[in-house]
Amino acid sequence: MDTTKLESLDRLINEFSKLPGVGKKTAGRYAYHIVTGSSEQAETFAKAILEAKNNIKFCSICGNFASGDTCPICDSRSHSTICVVKEPKDVLAIEKAHSYKGVYHVLHGTINPLANIAPKDIKIAELIARVAKGDTTEVILATSPDVEGEATAMYIASLVKAYGVKVTRIAQGLAAGTQLEFADEVTLTKALEDRKPI
Amino acid sequence: MDTTKLESLDRLINEFSKLPGVGKKTAGRYAYHIVTGSSEQAETFAKAILEAKNNIKFCSICGNFASGDTCPICDSRSHSTICVVKEPKDVLAIEKAHSYKGVYHVLHGTINPLANIAPKDIKIAELIARVAKGDTTEVILATSPDVEGEATAMYIASLVKAYGVKVTRIAQGLAAGTQLEFADEVTLTKALEDRKPI
Repeated sequence: MDTTKLESLDRLINEFSKLPGVGKKTAGRYAYHIVTGSSEQAETFAKAILEAKNNIKFCSICGNFASGDTCPICDSRSHSTICVVKEPKDVLAIEKAHSYKGVYHVLHGTINPLANIAPKDIKIAELIARVAKGDTTEVILATSPDVEGEATAMYIASLVKAYGVKVTRIAQGLAAGTQLEFADEVTLTKALEDRKPI
Repeated sequence: MDTTKLESLDRLINEFSKLPGVGKKTAGRYAYHIVTGSSEQAETFAKAILEAKNNIKFCSICGNFASGDTCPICDSRSHSTICVVKEPKDVLAIEKAHSYKGVYHVLHGTINPLANIAPKDIKIAELIARVAKGDTTEVILATSPDVEGEATAMYIASLVKAYGVKVTRIAQGLAAGTQLEFADEVTLTKALEDRKPI
């Protein structure tokens, strides 16, 4: 089969396979969807990519998505409490709960030696610079309770404590609505350790 | 949070979620990858989509990918044997085996009442038109041995036989290199039923 003429398909498959978690097979399925779809659909898709890339900036203070230089959360809230998260979608998740009224700091990753992500590769220096200004009274470490999230939290805690700022970690325990019999050992251990008097 | 200004991100997530098997969460991860990447990467991606859509046509004879009106396989081979497959990627899979020397017919789908795909929605009429020309001596039904593939094969067989053309189905049995103890019941039954003298 004359594959040289079909190289634009290979290029598209290659582009799709750069997306996180997408292998050649899945990329091929996506590319097939594009070439069998209408021209309007392909144009809308390409336009959405360019527009999102051009319109979406990151807040110069917290690193969250923003359309201007700073995000609406940094513009409107007290900066005394900073909640540290891994990604912008974590900000959205916490905002949906409507219980936190402080500002955020988006690390854009967690320390992960296996994936070659060192402290300098994520926005830890920017967080320390915010804390060093002296307006901060508490830093809440809200990275996920997995290996990378815990390591990142511990690393940041050691740095922030040097500024005399209160450092807290989000609580671990049983999730609302889950059944005790299905909880894993680590979660159960944490839930028992951190028991509260009622 | 001011979400109206971030609607270009929502539009991109929406576009990604139109891809097969992609939900809102995965689409969000893909979109995050785009907006955190470089502008060059986004432009290359958008360009690849448009180029693939503009360059890749479908062969007017067999429905396979083509850069011109017909594909290189239809242009260069005998049309006496037609191998019927579901998708262009199935053509690539068979071509890789280097054992088939006839032409193909790509259905672009299989009959699937649950997904509202009727015989008229896939390229069965085009296949019958090719067979009706009288050049065909054999039609090999090479749809997958799953429910939709089998149903489609049976349906096409009944139509093609009316033209006095030999109709065959690709063999089912144990795959090369697999272990008998792990084969499923249906495959084992087929493998025993279709046993060959040696």
